[in-house]
Amino acid sequence: MSETWLPSLTTPTPQAGFELAVKLARMGVKVTQPSDEIRGKLRAAYEQDTAQLIAVSQVVAIHYQTIAAANDYWR
Amino acid sequence: MSETWLPSLTTPTPQAGFELAVKLARMGVKVTQPSDEIRGKLRAAYEQDTAQLIAVSQVVAIHYQTIAAANDYWR
Amino acid sequence: MSETWLPSLTTPTPQAGFELAVKLARMGVKVTQPSDEIRGKLRAAYEQDTAQLIAVSQVVAIHYQTIAAANDYWR
Amino acid sequence: MSETWLPSLTTPTPQAGFELAVKLARMGVKVTQPSDEIRGKLRAAYEQDTAQLIAVSQVVAIHYQTIAAANDYWR
Amino acid sequence: MSETWLPSLTTPTPQAGFELAVKLARMGVKVTQPSDEIRGKLRAAYEQDTAQLIAVSQVVAIHYQTIAAANDYWR
Amino acid sequence: MSETWLPSLTTPTPQAGFELAVKLARMGVKVTQPSDEIRGKLRAAYEQDTAQLIAVSQVVAIHYQTIAAANDYWR
Repeated sequence: MSETWLPSLTTPTPQAGFELAVKLARMGVKVTQPSDEIRGKLRAAYEQDTAQLIAVSQVVAIHYQTIAAANDYWR
Repeated sequence: MSETWLPSLTTPTPQAGFELAVKLARMGVKVTQPSDEIRGKLRAAYEQDTAQLIAVSQVVAIHYQTIAAANDYWR
Repeated sequence: MSETWLPSLTTPTPQAGFELAVKLARMGVKVTQPSDEIRGKLRAAYEQDTAQLIAVSQVVAIHYQTIAAANDYWR
Repeated sequence: MSETWLPSLTTPTPQAGFELAVKLARMGVKVTQPSDEIRGKLRAAYEQDTAQLIAVSQVVAIHYQTIAAANDYWR
Repeated sequence: MSETWLPSLTTPTPQAGFELAVKLARMGVKVTQPSDEIRGKLRAAYEQDTAQLIAVSQVVAIHYQTIAAANDYWR
Repeated sequence: MSETWLPSLTTPTPQAGFELAVKLARMGVKVTQPSDEIRGKLRAAYEQDTAQLIAVSQVVAIHYQTIAAANDYWR
């Protein structure tokens, strides 16, 4: 992971901040399972499992707290 | 998701903020499972599963922290 | 949900704030399962399931963080 | 729950704050299951279930965040 | 628990703060299961259960937020 | 764990902060299961279990909140 994928927590809009939160949540999985191929296979299972979909939504919510604070809530 | 669905975290009332938190929690699921049809089918199952209903409530609570702070708690 | 059920996060005491946190946790379930009848039936099951009782307690704790901050910790 | 059980979030020491966090975590269960008798029976099960013991510890941790902030970290 | 085990949230270094977070996470279990003997037996099971190891790590993370804030992030 | 592994929460970039959050999440597991050999074996299982991958991502998210605040969000 030597390439730059997270240059800043600043985003122009609340919605762009939400998309960044989704990216961080996915990177949090990728650090443990770096294989794109395996993650692709696993995805087929959990994208129909509501408990896991809700769990992903929770991780996004936690990252969104961080990003919203970093942007002073886009006020 | 090129359309604007989250223009601001500011809401006129605490209750409107809660409704926005619910929306964010649902968007956190939609980013992983974008199909309205599949989410509709899945919903039939989890809306009678208390563990998952509580999990949804938790995601709403996390987003509500963010939104309440963004609105300076509507003080 | 057009009626007003959350006019303010301000409460007179820490204990009243806790009761409001409980209310928010329940509303977070109600938005997904609006039927009073179904929630009543589901309740019979989870009120004897400690894992779910603890999960409810966690949602209350998250909302209580928000409400306590909104009230400047009743200092 | 008309009696006063939470007059203040202020405690004299960090340790007393931790004990208050434990109390709040338990009250978060009691609001859903008010029967002392049933909670007593349930306790026998979960006090040997590590997953639930850890879940309780998590709720305590969340409340402790609130209480520590309320006491300005006893600095 | 009348002896003093938590005199302060202040630690000299970030690493000492992490160790204190671990201690708080364990105390959160101990308050529900005070028996050293039973906790010792239970530990044998969960220390090979990754889901529970991750759950412990989560509780540590929550306490670490509190301790880091209490120490103004050791800046 | 007498060696220094966490000298500071300060990182030069948001991405380096994310990597530190991953490190803290892993240390939170290591304190309970210090054996490198056992953790290595356990890893083989959970790196294909999406529920656990998401749980790891959540712990990373919590630590990232702490680290981002410590760095004043790299603003």
